[in-house]
Amino acid sequence: MSDIRGIFAPVGTTFDGDGNLDLQKYEENARKFSQTGLAGLVILGSNGEFVMLNMKEKVTLVETARKAVSSSMKIIAGTGCESLRDTIELTKRCAGAGADAALVITPNFFKRDMNPQTLEKFFVAVADASPMPIMLYNMPGNAGVNIPSSLSIALSDHPNIVGIKDSSGNIVQISEVIAKTRNKNFSVFAGSGSFLLPTLMLGGVGGTLAVANVVPEYCVAIYNAWNKGEIDKARELQLGLLELNAAVTARFGIGGMKSAMEMAGYWGGNPRLPILPATEEVKNEIRRIYDEALALFSRVEGGECGC
Amino acid sequence: MSDIRGIFAPVGTTFDGDGNLDLQKYEENARKFSQTGLAGLVILGSNGEFVMLNMKEKVTLVETARKAVSSSMKIIAGTGCESLRDTIELTKRCAGAGADAALVITPNFFKRDMNPQTLEKFFVAVADASPMPIMLYNMPGNAGVNIPSSLSIALSDHPNIVGIKDSSGNIVQISEVIAKTRNKNFSVFAGSGSFLLPTLMLGGVGGTLAVANVVPEYCVAIYNAWNKGEIDKARELQLGLLELNAAVTARFGIGGMKSAMEMAGYWGGNPRLPILPATEEVKNEIRRIYDEALALFSRVEGGECGC
Amino acid sequence: MSDIRGIFAPVGTTFDGDGNLDLQKYEENARKFSQTGLAGLVILGSNGEFVMLNMKEKVTLVETARKAVSSSMKIIAGTGCESLRDTIELTKRCAGAGADAALVITPNFFKRDMNPQTLEKFFVAVADASPMPIMLYNMPGNAGVNIPSSLSIALSDHPNIVGIKDSSGNIVQISEVIAKTRNKNFSVFAGSGSFLLPTLMLGGVGGTLAVANVVPEYCVAIYNAWNKGEIDKARELQLGLLELNAAVTARFGIGGMKSAMEMAGYWGGNPRLPILPATEEVKNEIRRIYDEALALFSRVEGGECGC
Amino acid sequence: MSDIRGIFAPVGTTFDGDGNLDLQKYEENARKFSQTGLAGLVILGSNGEFVMLNMKEKVTLVETARKAVSSSMKIIAGTGCESLRDTIELTKRCAGAGADAALVITPNFFKRDMNPQTLEKFFVAVADASPMPIMLYNMPGNAGVNIPSSLSIALSDHPNIVGIKDSSGNIVQISEVIAKTRNKNFSVFAGSGSFLLPTLMLGGVGGTLAVANVVPEYCVAIYNAWNKGEIDKARELQLGLLELNAAVTARFGIGGMKSAMEMAGYWGGNPRLPILPATEEVKNEIRRIYDEALALFSRVEGGECGC
Repeated sequence: MSDIRGIFAPVGTTFDGDGNLDLQKYEENARKFSQTGLAGLVILGSNGEFVMLNMKEKVTLVETARKAVSSSMKIIAGTGCESLRDTIELTKRCAGAGADAALVITPNFFKRDMNPQTLEKFFVAVADASPMPIMLYNMPGNAGVNIPSSLSIALSDHPNIVGIKDSSGNIVQISEVIAKTRNKNFSVFAGSGSFLLPTLMLGGVGGTLAVANVVPEYCVAIYNAWNKGEIDKARELQLGLLELNAAVTARFGIGGMKSAMEMAGYWGGNPRLPILPATEEVKNEIRRIYDEALALFSRVEGGECGC
Repeated sequence: MSDIRGIFAPVGTTFDGDGNLDLQKYEENARKFSQTGLAGLVILGSNGEFVMLNMKEKVTLVETARKAVSSSMKIIAGTGCESLRDTIELTKRCAGAGADAALVITPNFFKRDMNPQTLEKFFVAVADASPMPIMLYNMPGNAGVNIPSSLSIALSDHPNIVGIKDSSGNIVQISEVIAKTRNKNFSVFAGSGSFLLPTLMLGGVGGTLAVANVVPEYCVAIYNAWNKGEIDKARELQLGLLELNAAVTARFGIGGMKSAMEMAGYWGGNPRLPILPATEEVKNEIRRIYDEALALFSRVEGGECGC
Repeated sequence: MSDIRGIFAPVGTTFDGDGNLDLQKYEENARKFSQTGLAGLVILGSNGEFVMLNMKEKVTLVETARKAVSSSMKIIAGTGCESLRDTIELTKRCAGAGADAALVITPNFFKRDMNPQTLEKFFVAVADASPMPIMLYNMPGNAGVNIPSSLSIALSDHPNIVGIKDSSGNIVQISEVIAKTRNKNFSVFAGSGSFLLPTLMLGGVGGTLAVANVVPEYCVAIYNAWNKGEIDKARELQLGLLELNAAVTARFGIGGMKSAMEMAGYWGGNPRLPILPATEEVKNEIRRIYDEALALFSRVEGGECGC
Repeated sequence: MSDIRGIFAPVGTTFDGDGNLDLQKYEENARKFSQTGLAGLVILGSNGEFVMLNMKEKVTLVETARKAVSSSMKIIAGTGCESLRDTIELTKRCAGAGADAALVITPNFFKRDMNPQTLEKFFVAVADASPMPIMLYNMPGNAGVNIPSSLSIALSDHPNIVGIKDSSGNIVQISEVIAKTRNKNFSVFAGSGSFLLPTLMLGGVGGTLAVANVVPEYCVAIYNAWNKGEIDKARELQLGLLELNAAVTARFGIGGMKSAMEMAGYWGGNPRLPILPATEEVKNEIRRIYDEALALFSRVEGGECGC
């Protein structure tokens, strides 16, 4: 039985008007998230703009989040860097800062070199050196590199590699990993809210979802409905989440996600440039979609949405 | 409620030693398929090597299949061609030959021209002219053209467009189509056995599966288990089908599929060149995978497999 | 020294108002082309909409072109089909209809199967059976399949395989083929006007260019300038052709090309559906670009353009 | 007339046995390069493993190179980072360290966000803030983001944007940029040795070539031959460079390049992990290719190769 399960938000990073970290807002967001049923927080994920942050900023965010929430909430830190040495160093420092696990993306600038053999050596070296368990992070949309199912399966044998967050949306690949790892302590997570339910129904145990920065209760409701065997409800919620999920990911990016966070009562603010904030036109479109999702949620859940 | 539902085999086309159609074997296969619980047959699908066949051969295969099975089995004919005029002509001739519906692939050689506007005009023109209902056929892996969900949704309003077979494996796209068409008479089908169950659980109503040429009873068992609410069993079967499904599609192609058909007691034979038949080495690998799938099926179903 | 060299137009196919072949217009175009300095005509190329034509129409077009022009103009027929048997049959029939050589595209619907080994067997089988020399046709943009340089080089040893038309625009791949075949009778052709001059300067000997349907004299002028050592002029003309070339290929497709043919005094007309004709807005844009190209041509060539 | 022209090596970064910078070897390499006819050095290019280096290391390498060579050799520093703020900071620090110009790659982790509008704002902001001229760096193979020709052309109007290094290999795109910028002070560089000559013959004025880390004199010889009008010689050398160029880039990556540098008398060593060093088998293959290239060079140049 996997230790890491449930719904996680890949927390958006808050910046002040000068583009510096705004730790107070970050802490407030984290505290609010801890009241939503989320199992934990992913700090330094793609949606946390980790590639925009230097090492010191990264460690600071992990510390801040760790202090903001109780120990029952898991803190997973995104620690993958282009070099193995940086990845190991950051993993150790994040463990020291209180993270429970590391989420390690594939190095990706040198795409042609990142064949399965090289990736395997990389992940094994990180796992060997890491004081905390690591979770693979497959994000071909941003990285341009995919972790094939055969590699995930091979790596699942390592005692310190305890799961994968797969953001590919490739449900067959996800199925293949589940099929060969379900007798192990290996957590397969959906990497986006758009395929959370299919991942769960095939045997996945959680999700790290950009949209959980906006409507964490809604995402948790899908998870809970599925686990209680309320399949029709789970399906209804899943299908009703698609448009909002797309709006805060593929369609409008991190700028869109941050504006939606503000609609939902969280601190959002601007991304670091060159990522642009959402325009007014985009915000209006997101508002429309957000309201629709909330209306559906209220109808299906039969109550007010805390989102 | 959709009229077209259940599991369909995209029947492999049988050739004799000279590469001509072997209609007797084709008929025998069709009769055997009709004893397996399949809802129907797709004639002239990708796995039927439709691009290798001339128009006369195509119509002959539809006639042959129609005569071989009772009217309770649906016959769907793949009638998409590069030109609109050929597509309409073939659709009419296949209707005359007894097909119940047409499966119409995107024209695809001129990929850049096949934007949503052009595709919409194409499908509407076919649907307007067709004496039988048509089903969209999205097959980006072969065609290099994708039908985006927004287009499928728009086309679902046409009274003569009754569904889509989506072979993309893009479960989010499939979900989006279901979310916006589930109150209509519009059947969403999985186009491969590797994502049959997730498609069904999200609201899809069937599948046209290459692997149903090999283990139709197994595929039907997934469908039935899901519909009876036997979720654990459905999942077990789905996960156990992945490797065989890959072997008769992406890994070893039509040559692999035809060799697996022979293992299962159907006529297979060689594809038309340049598609090569499976080598002995490949056959041995498929045999191993096939036996594993059957063993799992027997264990889960608690009986002998008719496959 | 290669036998096949110079500039060829991949002749656009003329249809009447009902979408049937208009052979008279086709013949008139062919005759006009024969006055432009073109080395020959490619019948049944991509720009000839070959995938929209049935076998009888294909052979008729070759016959028509052959009769329309003197024997000093080479006629190359596009004879590649999805199946080997159709390819061989069409090649033989086109040879009988007077073609001098065949241009054979990669089969492409079953992309995953079209690995180098399968393609090699295919091309060797066609070349063995063909009564006329064959030229490889690499068109990954439409086909979704690429002929790697190593395969072209291997095939160049076959006595009946005399060249390649490479439309990939991959100048490194083209260079690699030239580097290893330049001591053989193997003609490397640019497959688009946008990289004609770099292909020639590296050792290519000709081009089959959509834009040669519109401004054949301009294309021939690049070829002649290069061969005369007038490098600055050749460069000037090449750079000045880019925008028109893009307009009649990637930007506006075959509909755009046909409208530009009409501007240039050739018969154009509509493509077969689903390919749409150019809109008025597109025609105006093409007209602007066409006029600019002609103005540059007149300036550089110092005379009136016959285009 | 462009200020930045000629052949540049994107200098490989030397590490010691612990994976730390080995500045002495770096300096020795730089001095040797300055005797080869190279116009300058690119520090912190892709082949310099810039994504593996922290900001302090980056600045140190620029300082080291600047001190090692005379002021007649240009030093171009790769200063692109994911965030605008880091890019500007690094650009300023590299200018302070003595760089003559900055080579700025597209931010690329958030690929979907890197549309032309966002990229334009990014490059303009960097150019506005930079104390030295900047050169665009288009590297879609690693970045997964392309700078379309229309954007390069628009940016060429900025007084502080003085050129582009295009590593795409897309000769049409390169041609389009040249066609619209050749009357400006805008240097178009080939980003790989495999398409150096076609770039030059179309109007490009230089190249930054991984293979110039191995055989700088050979690369310079192509440039000189072209500029002297020795076209046949330039072509001969270009075609003879293809295989070595592929070996130290696409085929064997940075590990391959570094092993080839050692064959040529430069310090190479290991890349930072996860990039793996070349195996013995790979080294033998590179040795064979390297010797062939040198033999051709000697034959064509009629003398001993300093390479």
